[in-house]
Order: sequence, then structure tokens, then C-alpha cells
Amino acid sequence: MRGKMKEEVLKRNIVKIVNDVKTKNPMCPSITNSVTINLVANAQIAVGGSAAMVYFGDEAITLGEVGQCFYINVGTLLPIFKESLPTCCKYFYENDIPWVLDPVAVGVGSLRTELLTAMKEWKPSIIRGNPSEIIALARLWELEEGQGSNVRGVDSTDEVETARSAAIALAKYTGGAVAASGEVDLITDGKSIVYSYGGSKYMDRITGAGCSLGGVCGIYLSQGDPLTAAVTAHNIYNLAAKRAEEQVDGPGSFEVYFLDELYKATAEEISNVKMKKEELE
Amino acid sequence: MRGKMKEEVLKRNIVKIVNDVKTKNPMCPSITNSVTINLVANAQIAVGGSAAMVYFGDEAITLGEVGQCFYINVGTLLPIFKESLPTCCKYFYENDIPWVLDPVAVGVGSLRTELLTAMKEWKPSIIRGNPSEIIALARLWELEEGQGSNVRGVDSTDEVETARSAAIALAKYTGGAVAASGEVDLITDGKSIVYSYGGSKYMDRITGAGCSLGGVCGIYLSQGDPLTAAVTAHNIYNLAAKRAEEQVDGPGSFEVYFLDELYKATAEEISNVKMKKEELE
Amino acid sequence: MRGKMKEEVLKRNIVKIVNDVKTKNPMCPSITNSVTINLVANAQIAVGGSAAMVYFGDEAITLGEVGQCFYINVGTLLPIFKESLPTCCKYFYENDIPWVLDPVAVGVGSLRTELLTAMKEWKPSIIRGNPSEIIALARLWELEEGQGSNVRGVDSTDEVETARSAAIALAKYTGGAVAASGEVDLITDGKSIVYSYGGSKYMDRITGAGCSLGGVCGIYLSQGDPLTAAVTAHNIYNLAAKRAEEQVDGPGSFEVYFLDELYKATAEEISNVKMKKEELE
Repeated sequence: MRGKMKEEVLKRNIVKIVNDVKTKNPMCPSITNSVTINLVANAQIAVGGSAAMVYFGDEAITLGEVGQCFYINVGTLLPIFKESLPTCCKYFYENDIPWVLDPVAVGVGSLRTELLTAMKEWKPSIIRGNPSEIIALARLWELEEGQGSNVRGVDSTDEVETARSAAIALAKYTGGAVAASGEVDLITDGKSIVYSYGGSKYMDRITGAGCSLGGVCGIYLSQGDPLTAAVTAHNIYNLAAKRAEEQVDGPGSFEVYFLDELYKATAEEISNVKMKKEELE
Repeated sequence: MRGKMKEEVLKRNIVKIVNDVKTKNPMCPSITNSVTINLVANAQIAVGGSAAMVYFGDEAITLGEVGQCFYINVGTLLPIFKESLPTCCKYFYENDIPWVLDPVAVGVGSLRTELLTAMKEWKPSIIRGNPSEIIALARLWELEEGQGSNVRGVDSTDEVETARSAAIALAKYTGGAVAASGEVDLITDGKSIVYSYGGSKYMDRITGAGCSLGGVCGIYLSQGDPLTAAVTAHNIYNLAAKRAEEQVDGPGSFEVYFLDELYKATAEEISNVKMKKEELE
Repeated sequence: MRGKMKEEVLKRNIVKIVNDVKTKNPMCPSITNSVTINLVANAQIAVGGSAAMVYFGDEAITLGEVGQCFYINVGTLLPIFKESLPTCCKYFYENDIPWVLDPVAVGVGSLRTELLTAMKEWKPSIIRGNPSEIIALARLWELEEGQGSNVRGVDSTDEVETARSAAIALAKYTGGAVAASGEVDLITDGKSIVYSYGGSKYMDRITGAGCSLGGVCGIYLSQGDPLTAAVTAHNIYNLAAKRAEEQVDGPGSFEVYFLDELYKATAEEISNVKMKKEELE
């Protein structure tokens, strides 16, 4: 009975967060990768938010102060990231500006390892990745021994359930939320787990489905708590992807209609996406 | 009567510039931001021009010499911009190669302020921005006290008319044209003002509408004077956006059809977009 | 009779390579330009492969080892390329990891010339460019005197046949394959020449048609020999472009349907694209 009630509360919170974004048009600035930077911005705008991408630390701090949130994606590191990421992440942590981390391709290259290791100290409010990245990050932060994850670019190779304990361990450590995105999505704040259902086979057939989902997590994070924000973002993605798939027969048109459906989805619809909530304690 | 006649001359000049671009396929190279770099190139190509993006100063000079024009957008600064922008802007100014400036997010970060301040000396032939950026640039260049503009990423928060005196002051200083793009667009060369009408609500719902408009200003600038070039670019944007909106119900498909309509618009149609011309002296 | 039989062998090899990619989902990582980086990734994914873009040399080596292939496009050089390109190209050459070179805008800027000159030593398995770039590279590598090619950004200005002897000279030198992409495509391994037919007028009206073709060459190269890989990539591009053109009336929607058609094309269809094979010895 209690779990059921809590799911009703979650739904009401989702409705509120979605409508707040549509009304207030909040900005979630980013330092993000160059492959999918355009889709991140367009997805953030489609859900009702606004975007601004930078590379320098001082710019990130200025915009993070304005938006009161930030999105960081380490997909394509450039030398400037060596200075700008520690500078702004430290600032966000010390000034209570919530930020989202997308630990793309954790394990590839020395700078990526150095930066992601350092970020442990600056606790992101939401961590979003595919299951293998969530597992690898928990291992890198020595929160779990993990079963290991083979480096293989940015694709999901592990199923979401394999990342369950890693996600919980990360969430307990940061005090925020962690999302492992897969065919089913698992989102946890260390106290409960929410599974979000829907999506489309085409999500793996375009680049940037995950990155832009991280950016949209940031938009909702500016208006709500980490768990609700992450669930809201995964719900709208599952809804829009399912609807887009019905209209297309290839990944090119899928991406186009997916953006249209992000734009059209209402708060009620997003809150009614199939979910399952499980209490951990 | 005189104003009316001048509007006929403007229309004839627009027809000529559009057809020259379609015939000659001119290149307007760019140093531009990484969020919207793809749309800038595709828009330039769609109107009949050609694109080439670089980061190094010597490459910018080589390509600027070939194209006899250049587009600079400071949206996402990288460390290399610290050297390359002063190098090429100075060269363009000293060698009479006209260039377009898009002062994105003026006011954010120290390098951006340093670079945009320095550019005062190298007088861009066209400055294109949203109203708040035009106001902020005029203030940065100490041409106007301005009413101030809150930093808020790259979105238009001020209406176009608020930027009127700032736009005129900038145009009188550079001797070129200045465009403040909004729901209605204001373009001035300091001697007259042209308002261009049309567009779509979706222009604020995709990233890069403004940036790509700046790139298209550059294409037309290669074949005509700054005022005519800027008006032509705003007219084709207003026309294509209006037509695209009629075919879609979301921002994803809007961007797709918008590019199609840029490609299909004829010189006659572009010259017949609703305008209002006002003499200042 | 012999040529005819050889064309049948080529067709069977194309069927095999296409199906291997669809089954194995191989990754071809890239260091590529920022204008078209999204389209490169989406095209690689649409044909059944997988993408990962980086800038650092150590990351390129790690991912090149995983994918056993790599794609390099020098379109928009950044300072980091000065170190990362020689580092990884040398490694790929010494460790027999085949890589694809797209010598975009060869001749523009000193770093580009320095890097492309050095690459002669690290023999790419496939070189893909427009005819003027193939000619300019052969001249830069002193394999041919060439008739010269005017620098003009990234567009094809020379017809494909003018690059015939340059392409053959490059292929004989590298021992791999060379493709000059144009209205008709010419692919050679120095022993035979294959022409591939089809395509669309819209291929010149979007940015990244060539870059993404290079990235797709890399995907097929991970599963086959350079000549077959390059022919397969050009065939699927000619097929998908032709089919996309039939459904659209502008470049925006062309790009969308082009990706859909890349995704839908079957191995049989790709092998049956009109070709002409000519033995050189």
C-alpha cells in the first residue's frame, strides 16, 4: 500500500516538474561532447528548456550560476577539459549547484580516467550512463568491485539489471540519483528503485540518445529533486521514442519525429508512462 | 515617395544578390561554434553557397582570401580562438575582406569579453545577434550606455525595438550593417532601417536558427553590400520558416523542412517578403 | 570473360561484408571534423556499425585496438591534432590496424600540410576524397606531378576521371585502395578500377556526404579488404542517395531519408548497384 501511494506522489511530482519547465523555460548549460552536442541542445529546447554550451571553466561557472544546474558529458575530451572540468565541478559542489554527469566511455584514455576519478569528490546530483558505464564508474570510485565491463565505445553491452548494485552504491555515495539507461531504465536514489518502460529499438540506431537524455535530466533537475528529475527525463524519452517509432521506418526520420514528440508530450502523459517502483529499505 | 522608390531598388538588389549566389555558388568560410556548426554549413549550402569551417588563423586567412568574406561566431570559444580570431579579423580588416560577426553570449567569460572588445577595431561589415546581444555589444564598445541585458545564454529576451538605438550606433561606427533578429527583424546601416516580417514560433525551438542566419548573411555579403545582404538573409529566413511551419507540428521536422524551403525559395519570392523601410536622415 | 567473373566475385564479397557488419556491429572509431561528426556517427550506425569519436592519441590507439580499424578526417584541425594524429597513425601502421584517410581541404594551412605530408609514411589502407583532393594528395606525396587543383574548400571541382592516374599512383604506393568520389565514383587498388554509379544531386547540397562515406568505408574495412570495403561503401551510398532523392524535394529531408535508406539497404541490393570493373594489368 505504501509503495503504491508513493508512486502516486511520484506521478504528481512529475506533472509539476514538467509544467514548471514548460512555464519557466530554464537553462541547463553544458560542457559536452562534439558528436551529439546539437541533439543535446535541441532535446533540451524541445522539452521546454534552454541550452548553452561552453568549454572554459569560468564560462561554465557563470552559466551554472544563472541556470542553477549543469550538464557534463566527457565523450570527446579536449585538452581544455583538463582545467575546466575540475574548476567548474569543484565550484558547483561547493556552491550547491546540482550537476549531471554522463561518464561516457569511462576507461578509455588517461585523461578521462584522471578526470572521472577526481569527480568522485564533487558528487554529481545525477549520474546517467549505460549499464556498463555505471558499473565501470562504481568500480573506478572503489564503491564496488564490479564484474568488469569491456571497453567498447559508448554502446550498451550489459543489461540494466547487471548495473543494479553499482547504481545503488553510487547513489548512496553521492546522495543523488543514478540512472542506468537500457531497454528498460533503472533509476535509483539509493532508497528506492524506479523502472521506466517504453522506448524504441531505434534509440540504439542513432547517436546521442543517451547524451541528450543526460542533458534533459539537467533541465528537470533545475526544477526538482534528482530522483524525480531523472525519472521524468527517462519517462519522456520512453514515451517520445515509442511514439516516434510508430511513424517511421528508419533512424533518420526517427530522430526527427522523436524531437517532435518530446515537444508535444504533456505532463499527464509523461507521468503515466509505465513505471515500477520498489523500496529498498 | 522617395522611400517607396528606395524599397523598389532594395527589392531589385535582393533579386540580383540571390541569383548571383545561385549562379556562382560562393563560399563563405567560418570560425563558428560547435553546437550549430552543421546547421550553419547546411543553411549556407541550401541557399546556393558553399561552406568551410576552420579553427586556425592561417587557414581562416587562406579561405577568407578565396571566398572574399568570412563568418565569425563566438558561441563556443576554444583556447585556439585566442590567437586565431585576432589574427584573421585584423587581416580581414586590413585587406578589405568583409566579415560577419555573431556576438553570441557577449558578457559570458573573460576570453569572450577580451576578444569581442578587440574586434571593435576590426569593424565587421555585418553584426547579427538577438536584441540583447546587440545592446550588450554596443555597451561593450562604449557606443551607448544601453539599458543593460541580463546574461542568459543565447536566447532573445529583449524585443527587437529595444535594440534600435544600439543597432544604429553600431552601424554608424562600423560603416556596415547591423541586424537584431527577433519576432520581427530590424536591419540598419545607420542611414535607414529595414524591418523584415514573417518567421515562425519554431525558430526559438531549435538551436542554431540565429547562427545559421549569420552564416547565410556571409554568403550574401560575398555578392553585395552589407545592408542588402543582411536584409536578403533575414527575408529568406522569414519566408522559409513560415512555409516550414505550415507543414509540421514539432521542432524536429521544422528544421528539416526549413532547410528544404531555404533551398526552394526563389529570388522573386525572397524580394517580396513583407518589409518596411524607414529613412533615418 | 575473366573480368566478368571477377565482378561476380566482387559481388559475393560485397554481400559477405555487408552481412558481417549487420551481424557483428563492428566499431570504427574516428578522429574527424566537427562540422559533420554527427552525420559520420549516424551513417556508421545506420549501416550496422558503431561509432566513437576522440581527439587524444592514446584514446585513438585504445579504440583502434578494439575496433581493428580507424577513420581519420582532417577537415577541422585543432591544436591537439598536431600530437594525436602522428601518434595514432604511426601506431596503426606499425601494428597493422587498417585506417581510412579523408584528406579534406589538402593545401589549406601549414599544419594540414605538415600532417598530411607525414602521413605518407603511415600508409592508410583507404584514401577517400573528392577528385581535387586525390590529385592534390598525390602531388603532395610526390607520386605525380598532377595538373594542380585550386584550393576551394571541400567541394568537388574536378571530375572524377581527372583523378584517375593520381588515384592509381596513390593505391600503388600504399598497397591499399583509393576512392575519388564524384558524380560517378572511381575506386582502385592499383590493379583494377571499379566505377560505381547512382547517387543524387542532393549529395552536393548537404554537408558531410563525403565525410560520412569515409566513415562507412572504415566500418566495412573492419570486415574486408580495402577495395571491397571501399566499393561496398560507395555502392550503398549510391543506392541510398538515389532512393532518398525520389522521396524528397529539398536537402533537409534528403539527409533524413538518406539515413533511413542506408539502414534499409540489403546486402543483395548493395551488391547489385551498377558497377563497371576494369583490369589495369
